[in-house]
Amino acid sequence: MSWSLQEVSKHNNSKSCWVIINKRVYDVTDFLQEHPGGSRIILKYAGRDATSAYEPIHPSDALDKNLSPSQHLGPLDDTAVESLERAGALTKKTQDELRVEEAMKKRPPLNRILSLADMEDVAKQVLSYRAWAYYSSAADDEISLQENARAFQRFFFKARVMRPVSHCDSSTRILGFETTLPIFVCGSALAKLGHPLGEINITKGCAPPKIIQMVSSNASLSYAEIAAASTPSQTLFFQLYKHKDDAIALKRIREIEQLGYKAIFLTVDAVVPSNRERDVRSPWVLDDQETGIKVYNEGEGAADTTDAVLGVAGALIVNDDRDMTWEKTIPWLRSVTKLPIVIKGIQCVQDAILAAEAKVDGILLSNHGGRQLEYSLPPLEVLYRLRTQQPQIFDKMEVYLDGGVRRGTDVVKALCLGAKAVGLGRPFLYAQSAYGEVGVRKIISILEREIVTTMRLMGVSNIGELTPDMVERVDWQPVARIAKL
Amino acid sequence: MSWSLQEVSKHNNSKSCWVIINKRVYDVTDFLQEHPGGSRIILKYAGRDATSAYEPIHPSDALDKNLSPSQHLGPLDDTAVESLERAGALTKKTQDELRVEEAMKKRPPLNRILSLADMEDVAKQVLSYRAWAYYSSAADDEISLQENARAFQRFFFKARVMRPVSHCDSSTRILGFETTLPIFVCGSALAKLGHPLGEINITKGCAPPKIIQMVSSNASLSYAEIAAASTPSQTLFFQLYKHKDDAIALKRIREIEQLGYKAIFLTVDAVVPSNRERDVRSPWVLDDQETGIKVYNEGEGAADTTDAVLGVAGALIVNDDRDMTWEKTIPWLRSVTKLPIVIKGIQCVQDAILAAEAKVDGILLSNHGGRQLEYSLPPLEVLYRLRTQQPQIFDKMEVYLDGGVRRGTDVVKALCLGAKAVGLGRPFLYAQSAYGEVGVRKIISILEREIVTTMRLMGVSNIGELTPDMVERVDWQPVARIAKL
Amino acid sequence: MSWSLQEVSKHNNSKSCWVIINKRVYDVTDFLQEHPGGSRIILKYAGRDATSAYEPIHPSDALDKNLSPSQHLGPLDDTAVESLERAGALTKKTQDELRVEEAMKKRPPLNRILSLADMEDVAKQVLSYRAWAYYSSAADDEISLQENARAFQRFFFKARVMRPVSHCDSSTRILGFETTLPIFVCGSALAKLGHPLGEINITKGCAPPKIIQMVSSNASLSYAEIAAASTPSQTLFFQLYKHKDDAIALKRIREIEQLGYKAIFLTVDAVVPSNRERDVRSPWVLDDQETGIKVYNEGEGAADTTDAVLGVAGALIVNDDRDMTWEKTIPWLRSVTKLPIVIKGIQCVQDAILAAEAKVDGILLSNHGGRQLEYSLPPLEVLYRLRTQQPQIFDKMEVYLDGGVRRGTDVVKALCLGAKAVGLGRPFLYAQSAYGEVGVRKIISILEREIVTTMRLMGVSNIGELTPDMVERVDWQPVARIAKL
Amino acid sequence: MSWSLQEVSKHNNSKSCWVIINKRVYDVTDFLQEHPGGSRIILKYAGRDATSAYEPIHPSDALDKNLSPSQHLGPLDDTAVESLERAGALTKKTQDELRVEEAMKKRPPLNRILSLADMEDVAKQVLSYRAWAYYSSAADDEISLQENARAFQRFFFKARVMRPVSHCDSSTRILGFETTLPIFVCGSALAKLGHPLGEINITKGCAPPKIIQMVSSNASLSYAEIAAASTPSQTLFFQLYKHKDDAIALKRIREIEQLGYKAIFLTVDAVVPSNRERDVRSPWVLDDQETGIKVYNEGEGAADTTDAVLGVAGALIVNDDRDMTWEKTIPWLRSVTKLPIVIKGIQCVQDAILAAEAKVDGILLSNHGGRQLEYSLPPLEVLYRLRTQQPQIFDKMEVYLDGGVRRGTDVVKALCLGAKAVGLGRPFLYAQSAYGEVGVRKIISILEREIVTTMRLMGVSNIGELTPDMVERVDWQPVARIAKL
Repeated sequence: MSWSLQEVSKHNNSKSCWVIINKRVYDVTDFLQEHPGGSRIILKYAGRDATSAYEPIHPSDALDKNLSPSQHLGPLDDTAVESLERAGALTKKTQDELRVEEAMKKRPPLNRILSLADMEDVAKQVLSYRAWAYYSSAADDEISLQENARAFQRFFFKARVMRPVSHCDSSTRILGFETTLPIFVCGSALAKLGHPLGEINITKGCAPPKIIQMVSSNASLSYAEIAAASTPSQTLFFQLYKHKDDAIALKRIREIEQLGYKAIFLTVDAVVPSNRERDVRSPWVLDDQETGIKVYNEGEGAADTTDAVLGVAGALIVNDDRDMTWEKTIPWLRSVTKLPIVIKGIQCVQDAILAAEAKVDGILLSNHGGRQLEYSLPPLEVLYRLRTQQPQIFDKMEVYLDGGVRRGTDVVKALCLGAKAVGLGRPFLYAQSAYGEVGVRKIISILEREIVTTMRLMGVSNIGELTPDMVERVDWQPVARIAKL
Repeated sequence: MSWSLQEVSKHNNSKSCWVIINKRVYDVTDFLQEHPGGSRIILKYAGRDATSAYEPIHPSDALDKNLSPSQHLGPLDDTAVESLERAGALTKKTQDELRVEEAMKKRPPLNRILSLADMEDVAKQVLSYRAWAYYSSAADDEISLQENARAFQRFFFKARVMRPVSHCDSSTRILGFETTLPIFVCGSALAKLGHPLGEINITKGCAPPKIIQMVSSNASLSYAEIAAASTPSQTLFFQLYKHKDDAIALKRIREIEQLGYKAIFLTVDAVVPSNRERDVRSPWVLDDQETGIKVYNEGEGAADTTDAVLGVAGALIVNDDRDMTWEKTIPWLRSVTKLPIVIKGIQCVQDAILAAEAKVDGILLSNHGGRQLEYSLPPLEVLYRLRTQQPQIFDKMEVYLDGGVRRGTDVVKALCLGAKAVGLGRPFLYAQSAYGEVGVRKIISILEREIVTTMRLMGVSNIGELTPDMVERVDWQPVARIAKL
Repeated sequence: MSWSLQEVSKHNNSKSCWVIINKRVYDVTDFLQEHPGGSRIILKYAGRDATSAYEPIHPSDALDKNLSPSQHLGPLDDTAVESLERAGALTKKTQDELRVEEAMKKRPPLNRILSLADMEDVAKQVLSYRAWAYYSSAADDEISLQENARAFQRFFFKARVMRPVSHCDSSTRILGFETTLPIFVCGSALAKLGHPLGEINITKGCAPPKIIQMVSSNASLSYAEIAAASTPSQTLFFQLYKHKDDAIALKRIREIEQLGYKAIFLTVDAVVPSNRERDVRSPWVLDDQETGIKVYNEGEGAADTTDAVLGVAGALIVNDDRDMTWEKTIPWLRSVTKLPIVIKGIQCVQDAILAAEAKVDGILLSNHGGRQLEYSLPPLEVLYRLRTQQPQIFDKMEVYLDGGVRRGTDVVKALCLGAKAVGLGRPFLYAQSAYGEVGVRKIISILEREIVTTMRLMGVSNIGELTPDMVERVDWQPVARIAKL
Repeated sequence: MSWSLQEVSKHNNSKSCWVIINKRVYDVTDFLQEHPGGSRIILKYAGRDATSAYEPIHPSDALDKNLSPSQHLGPLDDTAVESLERAGALTKKTQDELRVEEAMKKRPPLNRILSLADMEDVAKQVLSYRAWAYYSSAADDEISLQENARAFQRFFFKARVMRPVSHCDSSTRILGFETTLPIFVCGSALAKLGHPLGEINITKGCAPPKIIQMVSSNASLSYAEIAAASTPSQTLFFQLYKHKDDAIALKRIREIEQLGYKAIFLTVDAVVPSNRERDVRSPWVLDDQETGIKVYNEGEGAADTTDAVLGVAGALIVNDDRDMTWEKTIPWLRSVTKLPIVIKGIQCVQDAILAAEAKVDGILLSNHGGRQLEYSLPPLEVLYRLRTQQPQIFDKMEVYLDGGVRRGTDVVKALCLGAKAVGLGRPFLYAQSAYGEVGVRKIISILEREIVTTMRLMGVSNIGELTPDMVERVDWQPVARIAKL
């Protein structure tokens, strides 16, 4: 059986709500109340084609996971498909879409990309405003976002000379898994916003250089699709956002275990939505760009004193567990899985101690890239305090950090202070958005060169020789990096 | 009996000075010497209509309080009223008035206001230059104004994770009075400059969310009008500027006691006028805008070496008590009232100790929003010194602060260091100026979201769990907030 | 006897060099080698009228002091005078002169000047470029110039409240001489560059408010003219640049003693010329402005590897004593005069100790307004070190400072740290340049208001109550002052 | 025998590769694999005239040293020479060449150059973009480049007064060799990029003022040519880049010994190429300038994920010894030469200790002008740590520094902290590029004036009187130098 547009259009309200996604029709009436992003956004497309809004932020198995078979109503009829396609072809492109098209033409050849900053510059040009706003935004005034990066600039090297460096080995192990460089891809949501192939660009780009990818619970591709894109020798980790319902959480864990993911990074710094203004503002920016309206209707929203700021990021975590504890959550997790457990989002020395006492396998010092708690201490500063106040911690479990890492020197500084490896998030999103899989390979290649050169110029020929006495936290304010020379 | 314009116009000098206010005629000849703002400004309107100059800065009961019944000469006659109205309609609007009218049309809908900075941006657009200059100005080079806010940026959070936060209670008590949030409205003068309804916008906006309002002695509405606008369950505090004549001061105290005000905040940091150049300059800015004159008459003011800078702010306090002491003033105040007494304007640790010894109920660490003594230490820095040098003080009385608070993180930082609550002044003036009562409700709603989100992301579920070890004063200079992203 | 232009014009070389100054003819042939500024600048005017170059930088008695009676050849004849006047009237004004004329018309009325920064803004507009360059310039990159002022911004007040301040007395004594404010005018050369009446503007402006003026050895008016302009109750100090020839130095001391100067400030921080690039560059700036030439002649100056940077400032001190010592110079000075002796230009704690041991009456902490040794510690920082490292020094002699003082708060900070008074130099030059005598009175009036207001807001009613515990040197970098709000 | 263009053009590939340089023909087929800069750049000119690319970066003896006699094929024939000259005359100049020609016309006369910053400004105008990029570039984000200079700005003087300074002697000795100033020319490659006479400009400019020049292994003139240009009394040092093959290294040492070079500065901070993005980017900047192409061919370079960033600087050191050690390299060097040995590129206190233990004659604290390891501590900060942590080191060997020295005050600060002398690199390249030999003399003259003036204003009459207690490292962030006033 197939459906006409006319038939679908009758189900355009909360009593009966049908939507078209990729030429198939779905009855989402019962799902309206369960949708993490709220019913409002669905109802905007009730009785209509919702593909363009749905596609970039949902994995392919979301419909199967959330709707029962009976709610899959079947395909559109041929006339309907034809009609949609004709309409699509006639649809006027938005100013932002036109801007992106032009920017793609002016994209420099990949061999001109010399640094991660270069890559970010290209991404900023070719990303849709919506994607840019989502990727780049951070909490409140984006202070922590900037401070994460600035922290690295306060650490200088005390380089050693007259040491043999013709051979230099940058490989190491993370939770026992091999990696050619002391870096890994940090989990982040919604890669499809930036590129139609999404997270798979990263998976494929990481395969040849053997870099480990952590996949987010909120990936825009299914965990299975990503696993399928990986090579047999490739290692994938899983970033777990724990559902408040243990049973649902367990189902997710079982799925990724069976898919061959090798470790669980339990996210603990994002239990409630934060305030990301750039992201919240992005639809208004786009609306104003299209309409050019500067004078608002008298009273339009004027009386709206409610404050329901959520955005995409907030919707993704609305059902997560807000009451995790050391006493309850870690033992439960240990009881249900044999995978190594790392706590992602440790923000102070005290919690690092508690994590060691809870005998987890590792901690990832992180403030969620500055996207959650504004004015959370920069992870590198937490690492420094851990090194100076509790150095024995580094013997008890592995310590990683993420946030603000953009140069090989950043990576080496963190390793000198005791980090086993460092994670990067946004740089991989930007690289895959700008050039797809080869973009990902490109930035890994840049990081490799930068890390190895830094090691050699410090008189170091393998990771183990990087020690705390090779860095000094200076007491002045160094000049800031400028994005491009 | 009623008056013609012609009759009034004869009384146009210091020997006999009549003015028209709201269509009524007053003989202010004897009052000229008593006027806190000086006789000059009144004589400018001698024999004429003074309503536009008088209205925005005087409460409605000012004429009753300052003039005897015989000086209330009665209404204008009908011809005079008609004539004034005709003249008013014909009066060409100033460039600044036209600018404000246009800005009001472009005001964004309230649901687009995401932060107090957004609200301030709108206010800056829609306020008259005079009001903006009065509200925003501060002493000398406005260093303390900026440093008050910058102080918060030096404190970072050491957030805790793995703690239950699904329930989070932001309510507390101030002097025993309930509040849903650890904030209150700080007293400030002349709300009518920004909006015709003035302080009542704040009173009404604070009612539903149960936020306490402190009303200034120099409010532009009468204490009675404000009290009348409040709900029975609402708490009002009173900011006392003590008159140098104890009897007059006592009269004021009796009035607000009878109106139901619940506490007295005695202002001690503004005993003499300060130097607010932006405020003093504002009439010149407006004059130059109208006349466009750039070449001044030879010698115009050239020989004027006197230095009588005062402005509105100075006029308001010209009769205040400049010789208050701990030994004399506090015992007197205790002897005349049972209301709790808080000292507003403590600027160093030593005086906090003296206040505790004087057994007041609380102190408000404040440098008057940077409007009085330039280079006075930022209140947050004083709080930090109090916490590190005299922690026992917090057990003896309640400690508050104001100055530079613009984000939920600011509020939470102060509470971690021991503040019972924090006051905000300018943000409420800006909110009521931009959108009236709903503007006030809007910023309370924003602050609530920000405070609760910050608490949760710090692993805290009630105010009592905020402790000094959750903040760290960092030794580098963090990036500055930019007003808008 | 009188001279024709033709006759004078014959003496146009180093063998016989005559010049015309103020319509009189002088034979300066023998003086060429003695001229501190070198012979070159004189020879440029050999056989011609030199008045415009000579006048603004030489006191009226310079010709008498430097030339013998026989070298005073007498007046021009009437035809010559007429001819010169005609030529003067026809002389095309330079672009810079035209700019100044326009700027003078736009000068704001004096009552709009609210701060010393306002005054400096006007001065910058109305001064000739040459005068501005000479007054404002400092050594090398002008770092010390800026650091002198920035030092004040690191000191914050710990203000006291609840103290009687209705009466507030800002008067004090300097070397026993009364002053209404704890400030004095610091010696500086060449006031006539900025205003035809020169130093006398300052003398007259200081008379009514009883402010002490220090007169420079290099004043552009004679010491006698300045003394004559003062009132009987007015105090003048003398800034001594000691000639390398003791006999010549003594002659100068005898002269000012007889004129009634009350103290000697011996300059020790300017024994050799420094590098003031803005000043050195100023003739080129003006030349290029006139000629508009951008392409220089091939080789023009291209082979000039000599490095004879001196400028006006250097010329003034070329014969000064470069070998002064504590052992030799102070005893000699004591032996020749009974006047109090103050050492001007102490730049470190060690030399303050030596000065105390040499039993001088006072020291002026100064780095010559940043005009001599670049990177000399700011005087306020030296004062702070003196206070914290050698507090007993303040009991042994009076300590002053100059450099960077622009606000009443600056003055009060220095006094809290132990300074008896502070000197200001450039502000007085700017004030007299912009408005003459009334400009000088105006800034004194501004400083009085600012000092008294600051004292009152600190809870202080006389100078003696200002103590070190009322200021705190903060450990962060405060925001910089902006010249104008 | 002579060659026609046609004959040469047949050898245009890697199987048979001939090039024309200065009208002579060379067979470089066998040399392709040995060329440090790679074969690609040679093959670009295979069968063609390569003079313009070859000339500015190779010394005149490079062809003799690298090719066997049989590979020197002989001259072009007359027709070929004529043809090349005609083609050369017709060649359209690039935009950058035209820009440089114009800039040379606007070069200011040399007597207007007041500081090294002035000289750099001129150089920036008149240098080809390629030369500017090579000279000015530094590693990564050029942070160390800037921090090297900023370090000096944190040190202030505690100047002494009342000391005899009429006589002031700035001369000293370096490794026993006389110099009139405590400075020397630091080795740097490729002076011919900036001026056709190259390093000889520096040699000749240094002769009259007796300043010592260190010549780089990678000079663009032969060591013999430079030695020949020096005067008998002039001292030359040699900067050794040690070849990985000891025999080749030894040959180089023997050559410079025989030419009379007086000391060896062994470079240890540049064993592998670093990342100089400005340099790598320069050909693209020039290409884009010429072609104006903004839209790149689809896929152009898009698949290039390799990362072979090297540039000229990298090519120069590709065969250097990456495995030098204290145990092996210093004894070997001592065994083959009697010349004094200085280690150039010490970057921390620990290595300074090792150098002293290795009994070398001196160390040059340097991070290669910020061109190698990004975030290497500024040399002045290393010197300060050496002074405060290991002061006895200064008695064991001579200590120098380079990096960021631009003013006489910089030199004096380093000397106060214990440096025997300081090196300058870029300033000499800029000076010779802008004005040739006289440019070099000019900046020496400027430095002499600045050093002597600084010494005198500090109360110092010879180098030996400069002591650590005359400088203070301040705890605030001073204002930055601006290049020009």
